Amino acid sequence: MMITGKMLIGQSAVRGDNGSLCAINPATHETLSPDFGVGGITEIEQACTLAQQAFDRYRATTAEQRAQFLEAIATGILALGAALIERASLESGLPAVRLIIERGRTVSQLRLFAKVVRDGHYLGATLDSALPTRLPSRPDLRLHKIALGPVAVFGASNFPLAFSVAGGDSAAALAAGCPIVVKAHEAHLGTSELVGQVIQQAAAAHSLPEGVFSLLIGDGHLFGQTLVSHPAIKAVAFTGSRQGGLALMRTAAQRSEPIPVYAEMSCINPVFLLPHALSMRASEIGRGFVEALTMSAGQLCTNPGLVIALEGPSLTQFCDTALDTLRTKAAATLLTPGIHQAYLAGVEETATINGVTTLGHGGPAQKPCAAQAALFVTDAATFVTTGRLGDETFGPSSLIVACKNEEDMLAVAEHLSGQLTATLHLDEADHGLARKLLPILERKAGRILANGYPNNVEVSHAMVHGGPFPASSDSRSSAVGASAIDRFLRPVCYQDLPAALMPAALQDGNPLELWRTVNGECVLA
Amino acid sequence: MMITGKMLIGQSAVRGDNGSLCAINPATHETLSPDFGVGGITEIEQACTLAQQAFDRYRATTAEQRAQFLEAIATGILALGAALIERASLESGLPAVRLIIERGRTVSQLRLFAKVVRDGHYLGATLDSALPTRLPSRPDLRLHKIALGPVAVFGASNFPLAFSVAGGDSAAALAAGCPIVVKAHEAHLGTSELVGQVIQQAAAAHSLPEGVFSLLIGDGHLFGQTLVSHPAIKAVAFTGSRQGGLALMRTAAQRSEPIPVYAEMSCINPVFLLPHALSMRASEIGRGFVEALTMSAGQLCTNPGLVIALEGPSLTQFCDTALDTLRTKAAATLLTPGIHQAYLAGVEETATINGVTTLGHGGPAQKPCAAQAALFVTDAATFVTTGRLGDETFGPSSLIVACKNEEDMLAVAEHLSGQLTATLHLDEADHGLARKLLPILERKAGRILANGYPNNVEVSHAMVHGGPFPASSDSRSSAVGASAIDRFLRPVCYQDLPAALMPAALQDGNPLELWRTVNGECVLA
Repeated sequence: MMITGKMLIGQSAVRGDNGSLCAINPATHETLSPDFGVGGITEIEQACTLAQQAFDRYRATTAEQRAQFLEAIATGILALGAALIERASLESGLPAVRLIIERGRTVSQLRLFAKVVRDGHYLGATLDSALPTRLPSRPDLRLHKIALGPVAVFGASNFPLAFSVAGGDSAAALAAGCPIVVKAHEAHLGTSELVGQVIQQAAAAHSLPEGVFSLLIGDGHLFGQTLVSHPAIKAVAFTGSRQGGLALMRTAAQRSEPIPVYAEMSCINPVFLLPHALSMRASEIGRGFVEALTMSAGQLCTNPGLVIALEGPSLTQFCDTALDTLRTKAAATLLTPGIHQAYLAGVEETATINGVTTLGHGGPAQKPCAAQAALFVTDAATFVTTGRLGDETFGPSSLIVACKNEEDMLAVAEHLSGQLTATLHLDEADHGLARKLLPILERKAGRILANGYPNNVEVSHAMVHGGPFPASSDSRSSAVGASAIDRFLRPVCYQDLPAALMPAALQDGNPLELWRTVNGECVLA
Repeated sequence: MMITGKMLIGQSAVRGDNGSLCAINPATHETLSPDFGVGGITEIEQACTLAQQAFDRYRATTAEQRAQFLEAIATGILALGAALIERASLESGLPAVRLIIERGRTVSQLRLFAKVVRDGHYLGATLDSALPTRLPSRPDLRLHKIALGPVAVFGASNFPLAFSVAGGDSAAALAAGCPIVVKAHEAHLGTSELVGQVIQQAAAAHSLPEGVFSLLIGDGHLFGQTLVSHPAIKAVAFTGSRQGGLALMRTAAQRSEPIPVYAEMSCINPVFLLPHALSMRASEIGRGFVEALTMSAGQLCTNPGLVIALEGPSLTQFCDTALDTLRTKAAATLLTPGIHQAYLAGVEETATINGVTTLGHGGPAQKPCAAQAALFVTDAATFVTTGRLGDETFGPSSLIVACKNEEDMLAVAEHLSGQLTATLHLDEADHGLARKLLPILERKAGRILANGYPNNVEVSHAMVHGGPFPASSDSRSSAVGASAIDRFLRPVCYQDLPAALMPAALQDGNPLELWRTVNGECVLA
């Protein structure tokens, strides 16, 4: 595979003629070759029209066909070998070892969705028998879920593999039977093209309609908004900033046909240190916290940006250990010059807020885009009266809220806006307080975890990676795990449809061997 | 129970002082006593604050408590006896026999949701076991769904019982664990108060927090928009006009925290008459069609407002029989003077469109608000080039599209906007054409039915009452049937939470005896 600077529109490679873009090595600020041609309305129109044309044929493929397509993408990504890891590292500043792990995650996501498609449980097959002698009679009713339509996918800068061209959103949408039109993230254009070529080739090798996948290169917000405005697009998946997500939500809501937007945006992932646990393990928790805070240079949507604890000697011990650990952390390269600038500004703003004290820093920044980690401390009253402190500073910065009492902790919890995660460090002696916190945190977060750190997001069936606004635009769904497919489905009911026309999932005899709900009861195959 | 003209805010009855409203008997244009005090921002604030305060306590009730609450509402509605039916008939113009059937539907919806809550399948309990020896280790992950928060409910004029104060939306939201704030429909204020008193008393009798239910009276669009804008409200359920639904969607999208809107709006429910079936049963289908068209004076969201068939002698026979049947139908009273005016205007506009011919009418209108049924005919080219013909005329009016060939029929299908239903009349000899139509209709409608009429919407597990925009604002859900509860839920994942704090649905040993997904496999209790 070669990086050519072209867009991938169906089975074509097309160089955009609306100017050009280059990826930048954030560690050196050098531009990376080649330059990429920027697309415009013409290419959006082509990609969306192809996606629309592909939709009925693609959603009519069998589960086995779609599963093999997903598996072929996984295999193709692995076959790119070191070239992919090297390019992604150059473009993102992320170390190779982290990107190798991320590639594993990407591949296992694709394979999980292959399994999800083969299992067929996502179809939600539901049958109600006809009751011809009831008055009034009941017809035969059968429901399954079908694909929503072509999906516009906007990848994240912080996961150039796992949440980008062939990332979680793409895998879930393709699994559901939706063609995808991906806008390449401008921070990793070469990585995007390499992975895009894999998908393009897998589509051809599996004789899928070419419109099942396109990869566009665009410059500026207008490009994304034009893509989201295209009538062929029926849903949007986005991972990125709150500002970017909000703009796409507005665009989608203003269409003549509004469409769902799954935007995974910003949050601060509060960590509550309950008194007994803190008294028993202040240093251990402090060390673990800083490891979590500085993982991937703090550039995770699950980064712990807020710690809440009771003031006192145990919290002092936690802070001391955290600070000692932090000082051992070298400043790591952030993903882009823009993210670096925003981080510097965010840290500086936090440091100057009345009532906020700077606890200390990590190792100094000595390269372009390097971020010195930062820890701040404040009190509950300052936190709940200073809106800015509830906003994310993307990067390795966190704020400790020292509370006078349990009521303070509960007030901080109640003051939080929507979060992806909320963490409790607790022992059995803390369960009384935990029982007061849990109902609040359930309203605030999509995932509640105990005695750990939120960073790792397992790709499994019970995962929820989503949460109340502004953590995500749609708290009813998850961006990670098997249930992510549900975002791209809608139910259709068939009433008294002749057996010869009935979709396989709903046929008598259950040929797909699904678990089905029959007259309100779950029936295994 | 007495109709007092007051709002119900928690356990209080409050007379609004922002002017007054009266219900109108559409059959006579007489106002009905008493007059109702109109509420304002103060009462919205009170009701929403109470709902917010009630939320955690209400969602913490057991399934059995919520089920008994729903059943008590059902019993209370039946106990209102003839007084409720008489008042609803006076306010809506609907005959008592229809309202008795609708009351049965309302009661059975409440009882279905009681069963849904007791079954607990809606919780979607999902468990992934810890894998401590895997590298990296997998934590214990458990997911269930929790209530979304207080819901604003806007009832429909055409179902003063089944889609109003204690209708489908209210039942689904209360079942999910969401407090509700209902805006009474101004066309059936007395009916609303009677049913509201039943809910208020049931809440008290079951020791539920008072904010679980409030019933507000408002005048004008601003009132509804103010309610939807209140920060305590976390979802909106609406059944009504496209204009009304769109206004609430805009308001919800413009909140600082956007929230989901489930608006069930307008559509025309196309009925395709496939050639063989039409040739065999033209008269039978024609009679059945007119019975469906004139049911409830055509004021059903599933009213068949469009018929598509091949031109020729069979279609002529269908039209002749339909017209003969239509002429036997007396003009029935529409729900409100406003709906009557809109119907007259819609029919008049359709009649004057170039390319549309008036086929004939039902019996003449001789009373205020009475609607003379109307049948029109046009060709496929006119239909696809005249946007207005795809819009609903609410009432007993329908349009027949005479197609030259199958391609015309497919083009009409492709031209349709989102629908609640699409109907096929077909025989085995029609299956070839049906196979071409079905993929299109799946994209267009939430329910596809064969050899019947769409009017009756069964309340069961496999029903879908929803569809692509503008039939509904959210095609991913259903407003009728067991799955309607899903609209008011969101998933929460618990990671490594101690057993003592684990929600019952997710505890080891499965104490609630749920079907659960365990490591990706369905496990029955």
